[in-house]
Amino acid sequence: MSLLLGKKVKLFSLSSNRKLAEEISEALGVPLADCVVKRFADGEVNININETVRGHHVFVVQPTNNPVNENLMELLVMIDALKRASAQTINVIVPYYGYSRQDRKAAPRQAISAKLVANLIQVAGASRILIMDLHAAQIQGFFDIPVDHFEALPIFADYFGKKDLTDVVVVSPDHGGVTRARNLARALDNKPIAIIDKRRPEPNKAEVMNIIGDIQGKTCIMIDDMIDTAGSICAGAQALIDAGAKEVYACATHPIFSGPAIERLTNSPIKEVVVTNTIALTPEKMAPKIKQLSVGQLFGEGIMRIIDDRTLSELFRK
Amino acid sequence: MSLLLGKKVKLFSLSSNRKLAEEISEALGVPLADCVVKRFADGEVNININETVRGHHVFVVQPTNNPVNENLMELLVMIDALKRASAQTINVIVPYYGYSRQDRKAAPRQAISAKLVANLIQVAGASRILIMDLHAAQIQGFFDIPVDHFEALPIFADYFGKKDLTDVVVVSPDHGGVTRARNLARALDNKPIAIIDKRRPEPNKAEVMNIIGDIQGKTCIMIDDMIDTAGSICAGAQALIDAGAKEVYACATHPIFSGPAIERLTNSPIKEVVVTNTIALTPEKMAPKIKQLSVGQLFGEGIMRIIDDRTLSELFRK
Amino acid sequence: MSLLLGKKVKLFSLSSNRKLAEEISEALGVPLADCVVKRFADGEVNININETVRGHHVFVVQPTNNPVNENLMELLVMIDALKRASAQTINVIVPYYGYSRQDRKAAPRQAISAKLVANLIQVAGASRILIMDLHAAQIQGFFDIPVDHFEALPIFADYFGKKDLTDVVVVSPDHGGVTRARNLARALDNKPIAIIDKRRPEPNKAEVMNIIGDIQGKTCIMIDDMIDTAGSICAGAQALIDAGAKEVYACATHPIFSGPAIERLTNSPIKEVVVTNTIALTPEKMAPKIKQLSVGQLFGEGIMRIIDDRTLSELFRK
Amino acid sequence: MSLLLGKKVKLFSLSSNRKLAEEISEALGVPLADCVVKRFADGEVNININETVRGHHVFVVQPTNNPVNENLMELLVMIDALKRASAQTINVIVPYYGYSRQDRKAAPRQAISAKLVANLIQVAGASRILIMDLHAAQIQGFFDIPVDHFEALPIFADYFGKKDLTDVVVVSPDHGGVTRARNLARALDNKPIAIIDKRRPEPNKAEVMNIIGDIQGKTCIMIDDMIDTAGSICAGAQALIDAGAKEVYACATHPIFSGPAIERLTNSPIKEVVVTNTIALTPEKMAPKIKQLSVGQLFGEGIMRIIDDRTLSELFRK
Amino acid sequence: MSLLLGKKVKLFSLSSNRKLAEEISEALGVPLADCVVKRFADGEVNININETVRGHHVFVVQPTNNPVNENLMELLVMIDALKRASAQTINVIVPYYGYSRQDRKAAPRQAISAKLVANLIQVAGASRILIMDLHAAQIQGFFDIPVDHFEALPIFADYFGKKDLTDVVVVSPDHGGVTRARNLARALDNKPIAIIDKRRPEPNKAEVMNIIGDIQGKTCIMIDDMIDTAGSICAGAQALIDAGAKEVYACATHPIFSGPAIERLTNSPIKEVVVTNTIALTPEKMAPKIKQLSVGQLFGEGIMRIIDDRTLSELFRK
Amino acid sequence: MSLLLGKKVKLFSLSSNRKLAEEISEALGVPLADCVVKRFADGEVNININETVRGHHVFVVQPTNNPVNENLMELLVMIDALKRASAQTINVIVPYYGYSRQDRKAAPRQAISAKLVANLIQVAGASRILIMDLHAAQIQGFFDIPVDHFEALPIFADYFGKKDLTDVVVVSPDHGGVTRARNLARALDNKPIAIIDKRRPEPNKAEVMNIIGDIQGKTCIMIDDMIDTAGSICAGAQALIDAGAKEVYACATHPIFSGPAIERLTNSPIKEVVVTNTIALTPEKMAPKIKQLSVGQLFGEGIMRIIDDRTLSELFRK
Repeated sequence: MSLLLGKKVKLFSLSSNRKLAEEISEALGVPLADCVVKRFADGEVNININETVRGHHVFVVQPTNNPVNENLMELLVMIDALKRASAQTINVIVPYYGYSRQDRKAAPRQAISAKLVANLIQVAGASRILIMDLHAAQIQGFFDIPVDHFEALPIFADYFGKKDLTDVVVVSPDHGGVTRARNLARALDNKPIAIIDKRRPEPNKAEVMNIIGDIQGKTCIMIDDMIDTAGSICAGAQALIDAGAKEVYACATHPIFSGPAIERLTNSPIKEVVVTNTIALTPEKMAPKIKQLSVGQLFGEGIMRIIDDRTLSELFRK
Repeated sequence: MSLLLGKKVKLFSLSSNRKLAEEISEALGVPLADCVVKRFADGEVNININETVRGHHVFVVQPTNNPVNENLMELLVMIDALKRASAQTINVIVPYYGYSRQDRKAAPRQAISAKLVANLIQVAGASRILIMDLHAAQIQGFFDIPVDHFEALPIFADYFGKKDLTDVVVVSPDHGGVTRARNLARALDNKPIAIIDKRRPEPNKAEVMNIIGDIQGKTCIMIDDMIDTAGSICAGAQALIDAGAKEVYACATHPIFSGPAIERLTNSPIKEVVVTNTIALTPEKMAPKIKQLSVGQLFGEGIMRIIDDRTLSELFRK
Repeated sequence: MSLLLGKKVKLFSLSSNRKLAEEISEALGVPLADCVVKRFADGEVNININETVRGHHVFVVQPTNNPVNENLMELLVMIDALKRASAQTINVIVPYYGYSRQDRKAAPRQAISAKLVANLIQVAGASRILIMDLHAAQIQGFFDIPVDHFEALPIFADYFGKKDLTDVVVVSPDHGGVTRARNLARALDNKPIAIIDKRRPEPNKAEVMNIIGDIQGKTCIMIDDMIDTAGSICAGAQALIDAGAKEVYACATHPIFSGPAIERLTNSPIKEVVVTNTIALTPEKMAPKIKQLSVGQLFGEGIMRIIDDRTLSELFRK
Repeated sequence: MSLLLGKKVKLFSLSSNRKLAEEISEALGVPLADCVVKRFADGEVNININETVRGHHVFVVQPTNNPVNENLMELLVMIDALKRASAQTINVIVPYYGYSRQDRKAAPRQAISAKLVANLIQVAGASRILIMDLHAAQIQGFFDIPVDHFEALPIFADYFGKKDLTDVVVVSPDHGGVTRARNLARALDNKPIAIIDKRRPEPNKAEVMNIIGDIQGKTCIMIDDMIDTAGSICAGAQALIDAGAKEVYACATHPIFSGPAIERLTNSPIKEVVVTNTIALTPEKMAPKIKQLSVGQLFGEGIMRIIDDRTLSELFRK
Repeated sequence: MSLLLGKKVKLFSLSSNRKLAEEISEALGVPLADCVVKRFADGEVNININETVRGHHVFVVQPTNNPVNENLMELLVMIDALKRASAQTINVIVPYYGYSRQDRKAAPRQAISAKLVANLIQVAGASRILIMDLHAAQIQGFFDIPVDHFEALPIFADYFGKKDLTDVVVVSPDHGGVTRARNLARALDNKPIAIIDKRRPEPNKAEVMNIIGDIQGKTCIMIDDMIDTAGSICAGAQALIDAGAKEVYACATHPIFSGPAIERLTNSPIKEVVVTNTIALTPEKMAPKIKQLSVGQLFGEGIMRIIDDRTLSELFRK
Repeated sequence: MSLLLGKKVKLFSLSSNRKLAEEISEALGVPLADCVVKRFADGEVNININETVRGHHVFVVQPTNNPVNENLMELLVMIDALKRASAQTINVIVPYYGYSRQDRKAAPRQAISAKLVANLIQVAGASRILIMDLHAAQIQGFFDIPVDHFEALPIFADYFGKKDLTDVVVVSPDHGGVTRARNLARALDNKPIAIIDKRRPEPNKAEVMNIIGDIQGKTCIMIDDMIDTAGSICAGAQALIDAGAKEVYACATHPIFSGPAIERLTNSPIKEVVVTNTIALTPEKMAPKIKQLSVGQLFGEGIMRIIDDRTLSELFRK
């Protein structure tokens, strides 16, 4: 029986990021419990849990990156199975939360899929969710169960702090990310910030990359919460170089890396792309320029504190 | 504005079976409304509804066959969007209901995914579900919203009744389908039935196909609710022929046809495989032996009655 | 204070089967707690719980057999009382689940009463339900609380295995029970099965009992989940004898025995009717031919495992 | 089709008070729709609704008097059936609401059955409840669906007003009914009131019927919401006569008349017992002294106003 | 860490009655935990909880007296914060429950605000409520979480029992409070009771204070659950004196003391007004005639029993 | 009866902004219905609705500005009253949504009050909410009922477009508002933007107002969603002037104007402060520099479209 701090605990990994689950398992000192996740011939999710979970505090690792619908459905089926198998609490660890960008109605008659997903996870029966760097902090409010929100910023600040960079300016690649840029800048000893302001000077003219703030001769660190197709971060990096930046780094918590992302990043003037392992990278996405930092230790410590009824806040940014 | 019987009605099709939706549209005399279903680069579902649905009775066609998780998520996102766009009622037409075989705990610590899916559809905001030949009729009770349950049996009875078959016996391919076989047999002027009883005569010996009932020199019509990999129906057909059956037909409402299904059916002694179009068949699954009957007219009439507050039961088997 | 495996536990019996509750109490080593179930002069249920249940894991024994509405209402009132009295968990033991045959819409505009009852039990405040041999396994999915499903099949297999029966064939009395018959046949060293196929050879002619499978000179064991008025099991037994069966046994988990059941069984050619004590039998139903096997020990062990967070699956069939 | 004020309306009666349902039907001008309420052999409720209710506003008459659990379960099964049959609104008319006296915890660890029943009715799917003279007005708050609360007081005031009674004093038979007595007294041109104060003058001495207020030579009208076993109202009447009252009438909305009620009333000094027909009286309860006034017209008018979206308040007391 | 009887426990006070919270803290032996309750500049509630509550049983003291909406909103915000901070149970102590008089529809189209408040507290996430002398006991049924109902009557009985009062009669100031008066009278060795019956002898004439029962030369103790503007209790006291009472005391659990209450009480013939400290009194309300008895010890003992899973009923009246 | 487009409609105003309600009433052509909002002596909300709302579509105008808790509680009590009075739909118009800044956990153990308020409004029974310029668009996802989100941006763009301003730059007063600034800049013919970046150059040094972007000699328009104490907007304006701006305008949808706001704005270098009337301004807040634009017409048109089942999107920005 897996006793941790006097409690019955089990840790499971589903399909999407078994390597991160193993790192968490090691940090926690709890072996991964035995469950087999398969597909029936017609594509339906089929999960067999081969150990009792009755009365246990169960933790399940499953970021919902691409294939997002497959990963999400695995998670929901697992929660339903655990609920019916009498788990005492069901704690889902979703370091990357798919659909997080659909967090508001951007156009009429659109879904708010990030809320839909929260509703699905709750109706399935989850007791708690552990999550990292949500696209918008407001998504915490989409849940009525406790949300433990982890942050990668200290990891990035630590990483860049150890490089010997001079004349650093932190750059937000768009209008919505300025607060995130300011937070990293503050953690790097109150560096200045700049913003890339895409705008169309006149109707029917091409959009231009306008840079607000001083980056001339500076080392730029662009920060975002995720890199998807890498289009705007690469265009932004080029604009920074064109405007006289000395060199450009990029960092983002979640390496989605869809479609042309790796090619674009490789061909871009970005010197290094620093991400975490909330999303597992396939070997072909492990480009030389990509630096992946682990969040396994952080989640392991977080879970330990949750089990021990201690506060998580010491782990976080401030 | 789409007024039908004095009510504002809109009919949408998502991705999984647009052809069936078109047949329903034609039967109903209501054009398919404009919505665009796409995927973002990272695989997330993206639906744009290009017409107002405010105050409308909305019907959405989306069987949840393979890729089941993609199709299900499309449906859930659409329901969320319609709910937030102030649709008056949201009626989902799911002629084939994916995960319906996971309708009970077949082994310890398994999910009851068919109930999970019902919970997901309800929490998303559906007002009603239209469904056909559920794997188990009890799944109706998984819902607390109205379920309108359609049946293909009259279509099959009509089809086989028009063939000049003699000495017919209806065969259940397994223990759980005997009632279904009896119902078809009754609709075919009270034909006899037989059952294929797979059993292992002694431990550690191979399973044999035992046939219970008299099929010697008879025309066998095997009936099931769905054909997935076609393994057991083909083995059953072979066993019938081996036991002296004159010829074997097969019918099933839902043509899942996973993996080796088409190859197996083609190579089997089955003379004709009669299915419906609850699931769209790709061209490579349109084998010569497959006969696909349409349920579009039936659903169209059903929806008309729903809109007109008339009973559906006259459409059904009784 | 009733401490069991370090937990505060109380076991209560309501009116419907106090004898079974006493057997469970003995198997569990936990005395029945003190509650008094009465009726007010106008028939309303009146329950007084004479011991504290605050913070306790409470188990309540109450199969909902006839008078089903009285027994069900007792159960609901008890759950409400326990919830308001701060019980930590409320575990209801309903070995026979009344209304289980109303598990789908058999005709238009019917209730699905088995789902209604599940909704009632959940809204009243139950945390878990323990149940035996549901009429349809899908009823498990009517609940969103954990369902621990017990099976009497090992008890029947053990009982018949100890008799020296030869040439056994297990018979399903109707189309829907073939899987149950196959399961018992498998547990009896893979015996063959047969099915009684009631059908009407031509319209307006009388229904006949057609037997599918070979029972000539065999010892038939008919199995069903419950025996209500015993009409079809007795007619089936007669049909088996008429068709040349050597002798006929019958077994069923739930002895409802309504109306003419005992008289019919006594007058039937059935040699012995084996049932369990999920339903208490009044003395006048204790006919010589009736053999009642106890499930008290099985439930006692099951509850022990629930309290101890151990798996129940070892107790079950496979 | 039953169109009333342009709306599709159906009115059903279950078992408990078909005569009242017929009076309501007549007042409303809507015939009783066809449903058959039976019991299966084992006592389970079996309801067949023989007309479509799809899209209709459905009203169901079913006071939940003795046999209360049978009547309540009929109501719940009917609601479930109507919900699944796509009724647009389900309006239940429960003139007498069983379990209404269990409206608070009178002793530790008791249920609040009146709230439980409200929860059951709501989870089954009712849209609205019509109810009369609740034991406590607070029970309205047990519901989150609209409650239309009818009052019999004007009927009683009208009835007694037409008698030529002099020197009237309205008497509350217990401490909790003083407000009710004052309301009737006010409606009878501000008559005085008195209270019967049962108390035990010293510990271990017998309880005495103390009368507070002046009833010497007066015509007393005792009022209560219901008469159950009639014990305290008869004892109270005797005490009034013993204390010098000229004559005693009694009135109460709900004639439960359990056990010895009719015998007690007949033998008591009460001159006339005025009740309504919220509860149907069997012929043996139709004692000469009992006067039953109909509430059918009042409910008919109320339903008419509900259908027509007009206020009910004009029908009520003030 | 605050361990009490082996459980992690935290006790918080919000703004409305910190002094009572301190008395409870002392009785319980658990210090008040650190939280800061403020208002933002625009009046929004702002609560900072400065200690971990993860996994703790949390108790929050906050009667919802005037300013009722401010106090209620503080409570709701605190519950939301505790829920999101992973408290194991959230137990709210609301000795005075604001809006309790809006417990039924007194006029058409009124809210039942006491139920609304119960819904708000439950949706926010409370696990249990501790409450004292509800205006109507039925409000317990407005909750589906456990309600622990405390009573001040033993405190009043004890207080008046120790005075040397002779010829005591307990007086209900209105029709609805007669049961309360009888209960106090019983606790004072079965004293007689009287009722003040406000009525209008003829239409358009002034309301008069009619006294039912014998108070001539007696010591009257008026009892109510709360004193708001003190209008009717003072008028009642005057009427008692006018009718020949020797002297008049008043007692009530909740000293709301709105508007002219203190002035009226001071000027009234009432000798002493005995209340509890469920509501904190500002110094200007501490008139010489007011005697405030503490309920802190009682709540402390109650919480101790809740934590220890012991029954509360021994603390209560009977 | 208020018939609008064939529907029964009623429009109510509560206390917080009756003038806006009157403008909406006029735009809609529906008179304000009669309800009286008062306080009981102890501060409890007391609402009397003096017209039937049975079967009506009811709209209630109540922004929840300061006193936010009073205004919110009025709204909740009103919703409860309307629900119990059988309103068909309850549509609440909350142009300014109090607590919207508490939309995420900004520090450990904080409430997400904006979600709490959404839960309160939904549990009370609202069918729909109409809202303007939420602090974060994600708050839409806090609701599962439809949210119709109105935008003031076209009103501001129109207003500033009609002034003859040259060399305009739109300025975001903080990091989080850059997208809003870009949207206004785009609507003003793609003007450039700038950001005020408060930062602390070294630890323990004073925070400075750093301006990112070129504002030298320009006309600055600062935009925010709300102005509360006006501290940062005034400091920002001063910084702009200090850095060489020609002149500074400010605009914001919601004029909260707490504490020193008016004094600060008056003393600031801001030339004009343009706001809307989502929040009513008391005369003392009507400083000469304040320009209040009405949103009444916009809401009136929006409600008309809601009643008529037409899309709202044409009213909005894009």
